[in-house]
Amino acid sequence: MKAVIIAAGKGSRFNSEQPKPLTSLLGLSLIGRVILSAKKAGITEFVIVTGYKAELLKKRIGGGGKYDVTILYVHNSNWRMGNGISVLKAEEIVGRENFLLLMADHVFDLKMLKILCSKNLEKNGCILCIDKNLEDIDFEEATKVLVRNGLIEDIGKTIQTYNGVDCGAFLCSPAVFEAIRTSLSHGEDTLTDGVKILCDKNKVRAADVTGVSWQDIDTQENLRAAEEMLLKSLKKKTDGLIAKAINRRFSLRISKYVSRFGINPNELSVFCFLLGVISGGLFAFQNFILGGVLAQAASVFDGVDGEIARLTMRESRYGGFLDSILDRYADAFIILGMTYAIYMERGGLWVWLGGCLALIGSPMSMLAREKYHAMTGHKYLLKYDRRSRFIPATRDVRLFVVMLGGILHQPLIALMVIAVITNMKAYLRLVDMRETISEGPRKTTSIPIV
Amino acid sequence: MKAVIIAAGKGSRFNSEQPKPLTSLLGLSLIGRVILSAKKAGITEFVIVTGYKAELLKKRIGGGGKYDVTILYVHNSNWRMGNGISVLKAEEIVGRENFLLLMADHVFDLKMLKILCSKNLEKNGCILCIDKNLEDIDFEEATKVLVRNGLIEDIGKTIQTYNGVDCGAFLCSPAVFEAIRTSLSHGEDTLTDGVKILCDKNKVRAADVTGVSWQDIDTQENLRAAEEMLLKSLKKKTDGLIAKAINRRFSLRISKYVSRFGINPNELSVFCFLLGVISGGLFAFQNFILGGVLAQAASVFDGVDGEIARLTMRESRYGGFLDSILDRYADAFIILGMTYAIYMERGGLWVWLGGCLALIGSPMSMLAREKYHAMTGHKYLLKYDRRSRFIPATRDVRLFVVMLGGILHQPLIALMVIAVITNMKAYLRLVDMRETISEGPRKTTSIPIV
Repeated sequence: MKAVIIAAGKGSRFNSEQPKPLTSLLGLSLIGRVILSAKKAGITEFVIVTGYKAELLKKRIGGGGKYDVTILYVHNSNWRMGNGISVLKAEEIVGRENFLLLMADHVFDLKMLKILCSKNLEKNGCILCIDKNLEDIDFEEATKVLVRNGLIEDIGKTIQTYNGVDCGAFLCSPAVFEAIRTSLSHGEDTLTDGVKILCDKNKVRAADVTGVSWQDIDTQENLRAAEEMLLKSLKKKTDGLIAKAINRRFSLRISKYVSRFGINPNELSVFCFLLGVISGGLFAFQNFILGGVLAQAASVFDGVDGEIARLTMRESRYGGFLDSILDRYADAFIILGMTYAIYMERGGLWVWLGGCLALIGSPMSMLAREKYHAMTGHKYLLKYDRRSRFIPATRDVRLFVVMLGGILHQPLIALMVIAVITNMKAYLRLVDMRETISEGPRKTTSIPIV
Repeated sequence: MKAVIIAAGKGSRFNSEQPKPLTSLLGLSLIGRVILSAKKAGITEFVIVTGYKAELLKKRIGGGGKYDVTILYVHNSNWRMGNGISVLKAEEIVGRENFLLLMADHVFDLKMLKILCSKNLEKNGCILCIDKNLEDIDFEEATKVLVRNGLIEDIGKTIQTYNGVDCGAFLCSPAVFEAIRTSLSHGEDTLTDGVKILCDKNKVRAADVTGVSWQDIDTQENLRAAEEMLLKSLKKKTDGLIAKAINRRFSLRISKYVSRFGINPNELSVFCFLLGVISGGLFAFQNFILGGVLAQAASVFDGVDGEIARLTMRESRYGGFLDSILDRYADAFIILGMTYAIYMERGGLWVWLGGCLALIGSPMSMLAREKYHAMTGHKYLLKYDRRSRFIPATRDVRLFVVMLGGILHQPLIALMVIAVITNMKAYLRLVDMRETISEGPRKTTSIPIV
């Protein structure tokens, strides 16, 4: 299935020199984000309808190579008129196939396309994403819809009775082209006019995406709201105590800033690893305060690589793998540096024993979770912890303890705390898991029975 | 779907006091193994047809509670006659449903039922597992079949033209009962006679299981062959260098012996962990030789828990989880014991640094593999290693190095070798993985596209 992206309009309310679809938002142009979102939903062929400053747009977006998709362009020289004409231009490429229809200036969560693409499109029909939350909409600009029993009965900017708004994402059969032609013959030239024709034939269904975040970018304020929305979406369910309370606040700000430089997430992982190594080195040379601060900095930056990867849709398995292994080594260097420093300061064999116990316990949190994930096929969430939930031992917590130990000049206590919490946690997880691990088959290995 | 298990015959060639289905084979009775194999293929309701010593059989197998399935019994008092009559007895419970038909005295690899159950059974049809490898069969006893284009054209013990043998596992429609009744009316009373009637109607298809191991147990020799077959199946593709060359030879012998005591695999994991802890303690008290030997013993026993679990079909996710975590701790105690001993013997800060590096590197092999498994949904196989394949660093190898270090009284060298190979391996895996890790989506998270 192809996706048609409408990128023809000027966006006069937006006040910008360059075409609005090229506006940069957290490391990606608006249209680039639409392309990559659709790609994540499985689309690899795109048709972009250009209009205002078409050549600049084509030059900047290219043939799809940089997104690893194919992109074809059609030009709508009447781009000052209604957007129905732009949609119609795509017909020569789309032909008689169903297609996804998206707007270049909409920012939306990937879930929206997941929901839309999971629907079955009836013959000569059209499905459109609608949001039933009417609280934050721009009443002037929003296209309202009236939905009853999943069927869209009316659509338009000025309709009086409505219970949802059009989110600007459609799953279309080629009947949409015919409908637009009909509405054009009545002198009405917007996509909405065309969809209205299909509504009257009971051919338009709603994909309810209420709760999924999306933003139509008409103004600079909209752009800032979209930025806010994307940053908020980066918080993770698997975040530990300190990550939730402290680290994300900083890492999101850093990511917002860093995103504009186009840095590869894996480079950030390596940078974060180096922070850990330097922290360990500073500890080893008795610089406890700076060592502690850098350990916490590494903890904050541990979020940035993933955030940048998700923001710019460059998540990769290799990135996840690299990050995991480097984090383990960074942790180890920090503990090693602390142990060495304490030993040099006060001596004693038991310092090394404590350091070793911290080294042993440190990777156990990840080990247990990855093993669980590997066996069951789904992520281990912290809420699965039962007895062990009272002992936080995730990386954010461990590095926070390191920082406290460093700036309070109590590295020995920090080391002992880490040794105790990590190993206690591992033990309690063993006890918990006996009750919580499901023995059901993985979906991927179940045996079909006729 | 129910499974019908024929357990009525006496098995006169088998020479045993108790009914043949109750014969113990590596920790399970023959019929218990059939039940658990079918359970793994998704069957939870069983019908067992009894005959010879029915009461003893019922008493020993019970209502299914111990296998976590339900078992109903029907009795065939004419068990001295052909087994067709036994099959017919199941009709009162099976009714008009399709069913799986199995023999209580057959031992087979789980793959056989996977293949059989993946076939589509046509109306009034029957599918039977056949093996086209005619090399090792008992020509007197085997039921031969003639297969052409997937259709079984002829079946019988004495047919002259054949290209396969019947493995004794069937997927049946209720038409089989009718066919047996027809053959009985001609005075022919075996299941084969009934199947022959369906063959003549072109209703019997073959499920080709050539290459899957199975064994019909008629004699004590057959029993020993089945034992051999099951033990051989325990070798794993993921086995490391030393596991393949040394450990499995011992662990299979131990498992063969241990299986008869009904020990829980998790208890064996804990025992194996304790071996590691004691090894570490012996090292700490300068008993290098015994420490080394016990480390290698722990390595051998590391195979036994899994082997017993698979042999007695008691694999569990919790077992896998427990084993993984305990192994990491056992490794850590051994390294800690060695480091302490070396430090006490010759002193030097760098001994602790070396010990710490070995502790850091030790869990990396598992970490990398579990992370890979969690991300991609399939196991990491050692053959995926590229540059890193030249450095063996799996647990079997590490503990073998420990043993050599112990008995040659060179624990320091052993420690350094472990520190170097584990961390080098982790580094090279990072390099390798960049090329080898697939970026495709997990099957379980792909997005449907209409």
